[in-house]
Amino acid sequence: MKYKLRCITCGTIYDPDEVEYTCPKCGDRLGTLEVVYDYDEIKISREELSKDADMFQFEKLLPLEKNYYKVPLKVGGTPLYEFPNKAEKLGINRFFVKYDGVNPTASYKDRASAVAIAKAVEKGYDTIYAASTGNAASSLAGLTAPTHLKSVIFVPAKAPRPKIMQIKIFGAKLVPINADYDTVFDLSMKVGEKMGWYCRNSAINPYLLEGKKTGGMEIAVQMDFDVPDYVLVGVGDGTVISGIYKGFYDMYKVGLIDRIPKIVGVQAEGAAAVKAAFDAGEPFKPHDLKANTLADSIAVGKPRDVIKACKYVRTSGGFYVAVSDEEILNAGVELASDMGLFSEPAGSASYAGLKKLIREGRIEKDAKVVVVVTGNGLKDPSSYEKLFEIKSVEPDIDKIFEYLGKE
Amino acid sequence: MKYKLRCITCGTIYDPDEVEYTCPKCGDRLGTLEVVYDYDEIKISREELSKDADMFQFEKLLPLEKNYYKVPLKVGGTPLYEFPNKAEKLGINRFFVKYDGVNPTASYKDRASAVAIAKAVEKGYDTIYAASTGNAASSLAGLTAPTHLKSVIFVPAKAPRPKIMQIKIFGAKLVPINADYDTVFDLSMKVGEKMGWYCRNSAINPYLLEGKKTGGMEIAVQMDFDVPDYVLVGVGDGTVISGIYKGFYDMYKVGLIDRIPKIVGVQAEGAAAVKAAFDAGEPFKPHDLKANTLADSIAVGKPRDVIKACKYVRTSGGFYVAVSDEEILNAGVELASDMGLFSEPAGSASYAGLKKLIREGRIEKDAKVVVVVTGNGLKDPSSYEKLFEIKSVEPDIDKIFEYLGKE
Repeated sequence: MKYKLRCITCGTIYDPDEVEYTCPKCGDRLGTLEVVYDYDEIKISREELSKDADMFQFEKLLPLEKNYYKVPLKVGGTPLYEFPNKAEKLGINRFFVKYDGVNPTASYKDRASAVAIAKAVEKGYDTIYAASTGNAASSLAGLTAPTHLKSVIFVPAKAPRPKIMQIKIFGAKLVPINADYDTVFDLSMKVGEKMGWYCRNSAINPYLLEGKKTGGMEIAVQMDFDVPDYVLVGVGDGTVISGIYKGFYDMYKVGLIDRIPKIVGVQAEGAAAVKAAFDAGEPFKPHDLKANTLADSIAVGKPRDVIKACKYVRTSGGFYVAVSDEEILNAGVELASDMGLFSEPAGSASYAGLKKLIREGRIEKDAKVVVVVTGNGLKDPSSYEKLFEIKSVEPDIDKIFEYLGKE
Repeated sequence: MKYKLRCITCGTIYDPDEVEYTCPKCGDRLGTLEVVYDYDEIKISREELSKDADMFQFEKLLPLEKNYYKVPLKVGGTPLYEFPNKAEKLGINRFFVKYDGVNPTASYKDRASAVAIAKAVEKGYDTIYAASTGNAASSLAGLTAPTHLKSVIFVPAKAPRPKIMQIKIFGAKLVPINADYDTVFDLSMKVGEKMGWYCRNSAINPYLLEGKKTGGMEIAVQMDFDVPDYVLVGVGDGTVISGIYKGFYDMYKVGLIDRIPKIVGVQAEGAAAVKAAFDAGEPFKPHDLKANTLADSIAVGKPRDVIKACKYVRTSGGFYVAVSDEEILNAGVELASDMGLFSEPAGSASYAGLKKLIREGRIEKDAKVVVVVTGNGLKDPSSYEKLFEIKSVEPDIDKIFEYLGKE
C-alpha cells in the first residue's frame, strides 16, 4: 500500500487493512484518521497538472489502488475566478472565488463521494450510506446512480426541498428523519453498522477528506503554484476545511508549492462549535452546541471532524470567525449581483467572513485571498426569498412602464 | 468585418452595420438573419481546439471584434459523457449526453448570453433586455452581473421559482408578467424598442445563435471530430437546435469535420409548433399553436426561430418528433437514476425523443447518438415532485428499520 492511516489524537499508525474507519483506541470523535503517504516515493511535477482537468489528475496523491473505479461524471476541475475590481473595492491585493457550484450535483461534496465510491468498489461493498444535511446526500445519490452500488441516505426531514428531490430522482433509498443533523448522523451509524453497509459519513470515513483536498490542490494549480495568503471556507463538520489544508500540505510535502496558505474557517454564529473548540485552545476538545442557522449545510452542533479542523487550521496560522445569518445572506447577494455567482447560504459564509475580517482590519492590504463557494444557490433558493418582494404585472404596456418606473 | 448577415427567407445580404436585428423586408418572424463568414479566410486547425476550454476557443468563428468583451465566468466547455452500458440497453452503437447543466447559470442559454453581452458592449449599449421562459432570463441576469451593463428581464409570472430567484439575486430588473411566454415576448419588444435597450430575444438578435452553436462545435471536438449520426435536442423557439446545426455547418465549411449529423428536434406534444411547421413542408411557414406542457423552457406556442429550425433540420437530413409530458418526466428520472444527470424537463425531452424513436425503429442499430441536456434539474425540481411520495420517519431506530423494510 502506498499510504498508512494515522490517528489525529494518539498518533498510532495503522495499515489500511487493519482499520476501516476510526482509531479503536480513541473512538469516533477523537480518533479520526489521517491518510499519510510516503512523500519521498511520490514523483509528481507541475507540468503534469492542468487547470481544468478533473480531480483524478491528482491520483498519485489519492489513497486509491491501481485500476481504481472512477465515477463516469466529471468531478472537480471547477473554475477559480479572479475579480480585480472587487479586490480594489475590498481593499486587498487580489481576490479569487473557487466556485464548486458546477460540480455534477452542484456541491463540493462530489469530491468526497467520488473517493468513497472508489473505496466501496475496492472493498467489495454493494451498498453505501451517508447522513447529511443534504449536499453529501445528493452527491452520494448522484454519483452512485451510474454505478452498480446502491445508496441509502439519511437526512433531516427539513432539508431544503431541491436537495431532497435530487436524492429521490437519483434513485437512492431516502430516509428523511424528523430530527436535526446531529441526531440523524448518530442514527445512521447504528443502522449502517448493523446492515454492513459502507459508511460515507463525514470524518468517520478517512478517505473523504482525501477527496475534499483536491479543491485546495486545484487552487494551487490554478494560481500557477503561487499560493494565496488566505483561503476562507464555511465550516460545519470540519472536513472540507481540513481537506483544503491537507491538499496544500500534500503539495508542499512533494515539493509542488513552497508554503501553505493561512486557512480560515467561517461558521454561522448559531452553529459555531468548531470555533468554540478552536478558541478554547490546545489540546483541542469537542465543544458541542445547539445548531441554529439558515445555512443548512453548516448547521452542525456536534462537528465530527473538529480535532483535525482545529489542528490543521492552527498549523496553517489561520483561525475561525463567526458571522450572522444576515451577513451570510448579504454576502450571497453580493456574490450573485456583483460576480454572477449564485451560492447557497453555507457557500456564501466564506465571503461573509472575509467582509467581516476586512472590516475588523484582520486581513492585510497586500493579501491575496481565495474564498471557496461550496454549493450552488439553486440548492436552496428559498432561503434568499425573504430579501426580495416579487410582484407581477398585468400584460399591459402602460402598466409595464408604470411598473418599471416604480421598481 | 469578417462576417455578413443574410436573411433566412429572402437571402438578402447585409453588412452588420446596416441592420441591428432582422431583415426589414421580411419582418421579425420570417426575416431572421444568419451570420455568414468568409470561410476561405478562416484558418483554424483541430490541434488548437481542446475538450474542456470555454466557448471562446471558437472565437475565429464568432461574430466578434478584436479585443471583444469576454464575460469573466467560464461558459461552455461542458462535459460530453459516453454511457456504453446504456447504449447496449438502448440497442444502439454509442450513446452520449452533452450536459449543459454545469454552465455558470446552469443552462445552455449562457452560450447565447455571453455573445449578446459582447455585442452590447461593442455597440455601446448600457442596458440589455430579454423575454424568456426563465433560463435565458437567469442567464442574462447572471452573466451581466459582473459587467457594467444593466439587464431588464421579462418572464411569465408563473416561471419556476428557482429561476425567478436567480434573476432577482443576480440584481436584474425583473418584470414578471401575468401572461404566457408568447405574450411576454411581444410586450418586451415594445418596451425595449421604446427604451432603446439592446435586445437579447431569441431569433430577433442574430448573434445569439452564434453563441448557441458552440455546443455543437464542442460535441465535434469532444468526439475527436468523428461526428455522431444523430444529435437530439429539445425545441421551443428553435434557436438552440438551429445553433447546433450551425456549429457543425461552420466546422464543416472550414474543413474541421467531413459531415454534418442529422439534427433531430424534440418537442412536447402540447407545444409542437415547430414540428407542425416542419411537417407541413416547404416553403416553411409559422404554425402558431397554444402551448401547454410542464416543460416550461420549451413551452412556446409562437416559435420565433421557426424558419431556421425547419430549414436547418431539413438540410441535415433530420426531423421532428413530439413526446408527452409523461415521457419527458420518465426520461428525466432515467437520466438521473441511471446516469447521475439531473435535468430539467425541457432538457430531458431530448432523451424522451430518443427512447420514442428507438421504440418506433427510426434509429439504426449502428447509430452513434448524442442527446443534449440543456438545463439543470435544480432549475425546476418541483416538476418531478408528483412522481415521488416523500414520507419522513421519527428518530427511532426500530421505526427506521421498519421504514427501510417498507420502502
